[in-house]
Amino acid sequence: MKKVDVIIIGGSAAGLTAAQTARRHYPRKKILVIRKEEKVLIPCGIPYIFGSLEGPHENLIPDMAYEKMDIGLHIGQVESIDRKNKVVRTNSDEFAYEKLILGTGSYPAMPPIPGHAKKGVYAVLKDVEYLAGIQEKLKAVKNVVVIGGGFIGIEISDEIKKSGVENVSVIEIEKHCLIQSYDEEFCIEMEEQLQSRGINLFTGSKVVSIDGGDQVESVTLADGQKIAADMVILGIGAVANADLAKSAGLRIGLTGGIVVDRAMRTSDPDIFACGDCAEKVSFFGGKSSALRLASIATLEARVAGANVFGITRETPGTIGVWGTAVGGLALGTAGLTEKMAKAHGYNVISAVNESVNRHPGKLTGAAKIKIKLVFEANSGTLLGGQVRGDASAGEIMNSISACVQNRMTAEQIAMFQSGTHPLITASPIAYGIVNAAEAAIAKMLKAKV
Amino acid sequence: MKKVDVIIIGGSAAGLTAAQTARRHYPRKKILVIRKEEKVLIPCGIPYIFGSLEGPHENLIPDMAYEKMDIGLHIGQVESIDRKNKVVRTNSDEFAYEKLILGTGSYPAMPPIPGHAKKGVYAVLKDVEYLAGIQEKLKAVKNVVVIGGGFIGIEISDEIKKSGVENVSVIEIEKHCLIQSYDEEFCIEMEEQLQSRGINLFTGSKVVSIDGGDQVESVTLADGQKIAADMVILGIGAVANADLAKSAGLRIGLTGGIVVDRAMRTSDPDIFACGDCAEKVSFFGGKSSALRLASIATLEARVAGANVFGITRETPGTIGVWGTAVGGLALGTAGLTEKMAKAHGYNVISAVNESVNRHPGKLTGAAKIKIKLVFEANSGTLLGGQVRGDASAGEIMNSISACVQNRMTAEQIAMFQSGTHPLITASPIAYGIVNAAEAAIAKMLKAKV
Repeated sequence: MKKVDVIIIGGSAAGLTAAQTARRHYPRKKILVIRKEEKVLIPCGIPYIFGSLEGPHENLIPDMAYEKMDIGLHIGQVESIDRKNKVVRTNSDEFAYEKLILGTGSYPAMPPIPGHAKKGVYAVLKDVEYLAGIQEKLKAVKNVVVIGGGFIGIEISDEIKKSGVENVSVIEIEKHCLIQSYDEEFCIEMEEQLQSRGINLFTGSKVVSIDGGDQVESVTLADGQKIAADMVILGIGAVANADLAKSAGLRIGLTGGIVVDRAMRTSDPDIFACGDCAEKVSFFGGKSSALRLASIATLEARVAGANVFGITRETPGTIGVWGTAVGGLALGTAGLTEKMAKAHGYNVISAVNESVNRHPGKLTGAAKIKIKLVFEANSGTLLGGQVRGDASAGEIMNSISACVQNRMTAEQIAMFQSGTHPLITASPIAYGIVNAAEAAIAKMLKAKV
Repeated sequence: MKKVDVIIIGGSAAGLTAAQTARRHYPRKKILVIRKEEKVLIPCGIPYIFGSLEGPHENLIPDMAYEKMDIGLHIGQVESIDRKNKVVRTNSDEFAYEKLILGTGSYPAMPPIPGHAKKGVYAVLKDVEYLAGIQEKLKAVKNVVVIGGGFIGIEISDEIKKSGVENVSVIEIEKHCLIQSYDEEFCIEMEEQLQSRGINLFTGSKVVSIDGGDQVESVTLADGQKIAADMVILGIGAVANADLAKSAGLRIGLTGGIVVDRAMRTSDPDIFACGDCAEKVSFFGGKSSALRLASIATLEARVAGANVFGITRETPGTIGVWGTAVGGLALGTAGLTEKMAKAHGYNVISAVNESVNRHPGKLTGAAKIKIKLVFEANSGTLLGGQVRGDASAGEIMNSISACVQNRMTAEQIAMFQSGTHPLITASPIAYGIVNAAEAAIAKMLKAKV
């Protein structure tokens, strides 16, 4: 039996990052990643294999880090964890461990809709062959229905439309697509963008059945409408893959994830867990959080990987920083939206700033940027921010994230020292994060008078 | 004589921002901006009037804020400040003030080079007519020499080349262009970019004379080389315009700016100053700083404008966040470069990360991003960071700035919660700021062993 200092199960965002972090912190330890996939897909890149890329083979996490950082890699299916003897058994091997990190990820959530097992109904599995199969079938398909208008749902819809499918429809049970990530006004902008690109939207609509014989032919909504469907894609979220942990007797949390403390230790002190398989707590108040994002997985992996031989890091909890983009329109959010903040019980003041991300605005590449910041009204602490714009929204979302993580107040953000340049940012007079903070302060002052 | 609660002298980045901030904080006060210019140029946008834009009229700060925010505007030259009677006199009017904010800006620095008064030698004045005149003359010009390889120098050179001038040369006295803003390796990348675009670079070169008769014909370097020049542009920096303050008897500092405290008060408690005309202190150690940037001006203006009727803000000192871009190559810096940090006396550990700002990297718009972070080696506190990439470098520089301003340590940055998305950012596994921090931590751990 092979002996390894640290075994990591899973080779996606969490597993790979945990391995790299452990290597950086423990240069002399023997580290092994065990994963079942021959090739690992970039999870957030999956929608793009249907339109923008040639196929799943263009959306792979490169394996060069393994050799470069002296991390072992074993391809195999882990069948059990023997905690007593500290042994991991795969379908072909056995490995003794000193410390173990679980990064087993998530499964797509399956809806309790009659007909979901018909031919032509697909979940978004992180599997190269499976996705290549969908891509192949798309060539002969005229009507695609996507159930779920979250990130994956809208991005896949747009890419499928882009690939040439005639009718693409998105069905979202909530009043708006993306409403779990952005305030309504931002969701509406994205819905308009999707519609302008020829996507059919059915919001506030519930699918009651997936119809047809052996093969799907249509879906039926609660209001009786029938939508033709040669293919149905399920994009309604993810649930923790805690199967291995469960069989090994580790504690499982309320949302189905593996229970971990802020150092990412499970109920077994030699086993850590990170990423979609682990239970999460919110940065805001510390309640459990159902968010599952690759960016959260990598944070947790950096905590777990550093801590395996002695705790040096604790996660402050999950802020939630998310972006999406369709056809040049990008949205980003960091922390709580106004709606979420109110639901958390905060007393909220929000403010919006609109500007142009070049100065003067006549320069090539100029795009309109809208920033909304949400503050706790009494302390002025930033709870979250949203941004709408072009690709620059991605890094603006991260500047906002830095402000949230540092619990900056509106006053501190008003004195934020931004760098600016005509060709790459808004003008210093119009810098959106600062101006939104100033607008919020003006509102707070007014409220005091 | 008209009576005003707050008079602001100057209508550029500092003056306008101070007026807007004062309005937001004091909704009922009478606020007046006095400026000498009919139209105000966007200072950082000036280089672009020569190539990318049609001319100076496309590079103006819009005046709409005056009406929208109920700020008075008087066009006139201020001739004196009578501090005893609290009166400002212009060439046509007199205004009594309760509080005064000076935002009188800077002059281009003039080099002590023989021949600098010849015809065809221009400084970069913030004057519409003057710049339109240069632009007109450029049409008939074959050889342009730009003295100074800082931001303005390289940006103007590239734009002049872009406008169709055959030979454009930049002469920089230091070993590299931009060396006061970036570490050498970044400067070299920009120099290669400039050369690939047909600009002639003379670095480590001193101009000893500007030659010709009445009209400039060439410049002579210290090593004897003569460079043909139908036009010479001086881009060697700026000096504070403290003339008015001086005549009014306000204290002037070592670098020639108006002395202010951290609340931006001058030696007269009813007079504030902000922007290029004011002395600055560094965020790092609090020594005086010679930086002059529109982004610093707006920070100071937000402090001054908020404080006029009671101190609520104090500047933490100038970090210095700067960007530049030439032909798709952008550089950003926030805080200290490695060289500056060493010169400040810090014990430094730096680390570099290279990544791609899309994931997978085959997506359209992918660009290589290099991030260098500089830490104080014992505490792990971030002192500064530099970024090279495409336009996204602009907002990455601001994320780094947020980390510097919050005095984040490498450990805290390693746990930075970034948001990511295939079309707008690097992958969460490869996010550059975080990975550079992790690389620095690995170095620090190694140094301890």
